[in-house]
Amino acid sequence: MDGIHLLGEWYGCPHDVPEFTQANPLRDLCVRAARESGLTVVGDRFFQFEPQGVTGTVLLAESHIAIHTWPEAGFVTVDVYVCNLTTDNTAKAEQVFRTIQAVLRPARTRFQSIHRGGKDA
Amino acid sequence: MDGIHLLGEWYGCPHDVPEFTQANPLRDLCVRAARESGLTVVGDRFFQFEPQGVTGTVLLAESHIAIHTWPEAGFVTVDVYVCNLTTDNTAKAEQVFRTIQAVLRPARTRFQSIHRGGKDA
Repeated sequence: MDGIHLLGEWYGCPHDVPEFTQANPLRDLCVRAARESGLTVVGDRFFQFEPQGVTGTVLLAESHIAIHTWPEAGFVTVDVYVCNLTTDNTAKAEQVFRTIQAVLRPARTRFQSIHRGGKDA
Repeated sequence: MDGIHLLGEWYGCPHDVPEFTQANPLRDLCVRAARESGLTVVGDRFFQFEPQGVTGTVLLAESHIAIHTWPEAGFVTVDVYVCNLTTDNTAKAEQVFRTIQAVLRPARTRFQSIHRGGKDA
């Protein structure tokens, strides 16, 4: 059950972006990014913190997207994890990542790509 | 926005465990594990694949739990990510991880612990 998990830490995101501070715009962005990349959305759940900040996940047939925003710190963490059960979904995961990053516009980023599963499965 | 992200790959999970194959028992397990550890659940979403298999997430005030089961392969991936905004939640994340693992009973495991965020935030 081979898979790839992309992890981002985004610093210096501008505050005037609705997707950064509000649950509904962020949900719409993540679901759209998944669908446009060709991944299959099977559910989502987003939670609005008060006065600001969002935590949310999109469930995929291929695994999940998870995102957390801390507007008071200009900070976001994002995870895009896809399994490669019948096809290599790595390019689709990278596209989702780029689509969300292009809207949230971090000034600085850290990035890790982790291989999951493997031959034992 | 310092945080810790625990990633597990669990192989050889026995098939006769309802939490391994069915969404509702797995949701109950993950929510209970989070609450018992002292983490704050703010939502969840679980999806049942047919004929078997579950993908699900629990949203936490401290970040998230994500879990995917592939009963046909005896395989599970699990993520427990907590930020340490006001207190160090690492021990709570480890407790959640152990609670879920004790129910799903993998024969073999791989484990990674990743530091997220950091001084830049």
